[in-house]
Amino acid sequence: MENGNKLDRGFTLWFTGLSGAGKTTVAEIVEHELRERIGSVEVLDGDIVRTNLSKGLGFSREDRDTNVLRIGFVANLLTRNGVGVIVSAISPFKEVRDQVRREVGDGFIEIFVDAPVEVCAERDVKGLYKKAYSGEIPQFTGVSDPYEPPAAPELTLRTNEEEPADSAKKVIAKLEEFGYLQPVKEYGRQVS
Amino acid sequence: MENGNKLDRGFTLWFTGLSGAGKTTVAEIVEHELRERIGSVEVLDGDIVRTNLSKGLGFSREDRDTNVLRIGFVANLLTRNGVGVIVSAISPFKEVRDQVRREVGDGFIEIFVDAPVEVCAERDVKGLYKKAYSGEIPQFTGVSDPYEPPAAPELTLRTNEEEPADSAKKVIAKLEEFGYLQPVKEYGRQVS
Repeated sequence: MENGNKLDRGFTLWFTGLSGAGKTTVAEIVEHELRERIGSVEVLDGDIVRTNLSKGLGFSREDRDTNVLRIGFVANLLTRNGVGVIVSAISPFKEVRDQVRREVGDGFIEIFVDAPVEVCAERDVKGLYKKAYSGEIPQFTGVSDPYEPPAAPELTLRTNEEEPADSAKKVIAKLEEFGYLQPVKEYGRQVS
Repeated sequence: MENGNKLDRGFTLWFTGLSGAGKTTVAEIVEHELRERIGSVEVLDGDIVRTNLSKGLGFSREDRDTNVLRIGFVANLLTRNGVGVIVSAISPFKEVRDQVRREVGDGFIEIFVDAPVEVCAERDVKGLYKKAYSGEIPQFTGVSDPYEPPAAPELTLRTNEEEPADSAKKVIAKLEEFGYLQPVKEYGRQVS
């Protein structure tokens, strides 16, 4: 991606990774920061989208892909109208993520939220891993269904090695680097 | 709806009416005019949406309502980010249209594209009425499935009594009246 001034341009921050890797946690901190700094921000969270766009879809490969393509369709509409879009979605398959990347174009910023499945399973915020390991939930990404990591994400966050706030800072720094955000000068620094 | 200056505000022009009533024809003329006059325009046509958001849905009342709610969800996201959205969708049921109206809020402009079913059937642009009357297509709005007209649309277009260009002018005039568009002065008028 070329850098340069894109302050009025939209973008899509696409957080991909296992359930429990910290996608939504980091995305919420980023959202808060973005709302202070740009006018138009929209969050397309996997759960919100399942309710509003994809009710009735299951977790087969085909249904997962359809869900991801729908999120991509909406993200593209918003991005090309200057909105800063935040997507949190497991989106386990590389091919369909790359399809969305092609559709959204230049503004697509893929963020691989990378944590070992053991760490995600230990956190088990929603109690889903327990059910996945017991077989109560079939086709669970990282347990009984594959997750294909991005080959060349714009950013990788190792959420088992850093705090969510630090991960969020890296996302903001990446937006500044790419020219979507004006770097903020730090005022009030102590000069020793 | 209150009038006033809303030049930077988004809106949703929601064209509702029978198949063949002229929704898309009028919407395309409006789209062309809007692209000359405002920065952000998106068209959510029933067919595009069926492909991208609602593949697999049928034509039962429940599926139709789900389809309309999905269009409404996306229209709302765009409208609140300053986009001028054009929706063409039969959207036969009043209750779900009113639900979308509540979600989109102030920017929702319902346009009833009103033509008698006999006129629509005679035009039969897509050859669908023939199949509906023969029973080949079941649950066809206006033939074997109900259409509930809006009780209080912002605008009604009688497309069997006027040309599409005249209908489109009424839509533009309504946007000017509501304050979403700056009225255009007519230059170069002959003064006699």
